[in-house]
Amino acid sequence: MEKITSKSNNLIKETAKLFTSRKARYENHQFALEGARLCFDAINSGYAPEMLFFTEELQSKYPAEIEKAVAASKRAALISSEVSAKLSETQTPQGVFAVCAMKPFAERAEQGKKYIALDNLQDPANLGAILRTAEALGIGGAILYNCCDAYNPKALRAAMGSSLRLPMIISDNLVRDITELKANGFSVFATVPDRDAQDITKISFPASSVCVIGNEGNGISDEVKAASGNLVTINMLGRAESLNASMAGAIAMWEMLR
Amino acid sequence: MEKITSKSNNLIKETAKLFTSRKARYENHQFALEGARLCFDAINSGYAPEMLFFTEELQSKYPAEIEKAVAASKRAALISSEVSAKLSETQTPQGVFAVCAMKPFAERAEQGKKYIALDNLQDPANLGAILRTAEALGIGGAILYNCCDAYNPKALRAAMGSSLRLPMIISDNLVRDITELKANGFSVFATVPDRDAQDITKISFPASSVCVIGNEGNGISDEVKAASGNLVTINMLGRAESLNASMAGAIAMWEMLR
Repeated sequence: MEKITSKSNNLIKETAKLFTSRKARYENHQFALEGARLCFDAINSGYAPEMLFFTEELQSKYPAEIEKAVAASKRAALISSEVSAKLSETQTPQGVFAVCAMKPFAERAEQGKKYIALDNLQDPANLGAILRTAEALGIGGAILYNCCDAYNPKALRAAMGSSLRLPMIISDNLVRDITELKANGFSVFATVPDRDAQDITKISFPASSVCVIGNEGNGISDEVKAASGNLVTINMLGRAESLNASMAGAIAMWEMLR
Repeated sequence: MEKITSKSNNLIKETAKLFTSRKARYENHQFALEGARLCFDAINSGYAPEMLFFTEELQSKYPAEIEKAVAASKRAALISSEVSAKLSETQTPQGVFAVCAMKPFAERAEQGKKYIALDNLQDPANLGAILRTAEALGIGGAILYNCCDAYNPKALRAAMGSSLRLPMIISDNLVRDITELKANGFSVFATVPDRDAQDITKISFPASSVCVIGNEGNGISDEVKAASGNLVTINMLGRAESLNASMAGAIAMWEMLR
């Protein structure tokens, strides 16, 4: 087994960049994962890591999982605790890291499925939480327009592995893509904080449908609202401004699939 | 205006303890808040801080809010950026902190209202998120049994001020309290991941009702399930194990009030 004890090792420096730089991720079509749950979950979800790094301490804690992970990985290396600390985003690193190739994004939404579209979502924790809930509830996939990166370590952590399995579609023009979805028989609903919009509990969502969730502060852009055509709202008895984007997303997805 | 430039000032040391020690919070019946949004929100929600600390930089950024906050506080002090860094839980402190007296917890649930009861919830971010969503949706209050502390800084941050307004009831015996609630006309529902339980979408929740959400890993204890009597479940098409406790709580509360 290869051993890496230097923080200035090139592989370690490149892996550290995958954690911190979106540019590095998309140039290499790779992302990095940290922690036992995320790394082992990726392998159980069919990923074959390009690189697996782990400390002896981690190996003695999870011997069977590490054996399986090493077998699934193209290359593996033992790392010192200094190297683990260098790679880690946490104060108490668990000591396991994986570099994986990004799966191709999905090309288009499939007929007969329900999608969530995210317009300009900026908080990685919100994005990850929505992807996680989407997978739990059985959403067909997520359409991401102008959002923070789903492969950002905070987003990966909040998604708890769901981003590795849920189909994701990257949109570079949400108005155009919504228009195309509608031409292909999808109903599109923009969720807005507006009492004049249709009550989301009164809608029966067709088999092929999309719900759009907007930016944390500014909501959905006017152009996207106009393209969607249907405005829906989550009516609340309480202090509506307290509902955060990931909770609004959870309720919207729940209503789509209820 | 009093000025504090020493990190070993007693007031600063005591305030730091309120951030880190639950014991210190409950011995003093005080908690500490950090950040412009939380501190100003507390004042707008009627709190009169025992102490307000802020840097000159923060004051020049929010002069009107600081004037109002100083007027509302019993005592206020300018602090140096070193003192701000000592108090802060973040790497880039905003430079404003408040010490507030805890409001008394609510004694009991009010008739005609809907409550969420949390059995052994351990993650402060989950607790805060549930309190925040509860306030948004219009829940009457939260019953906390054997949970992490709602005045933990992580919980306060996730709740975004909701914990300062939502009535909270502390239970030291949830089985006894559920039995008493039922004797007082409340219907109590335990949410469980069990296909044999009643589908939560098929229940019409009475005006006086309580939904219990369980621990992140172990769910609701058998004793609490038995005391509740009604078992309800959130049926999902997807990978149910991906639904986290705060999202499950959001969906349960949404269904109670839908």
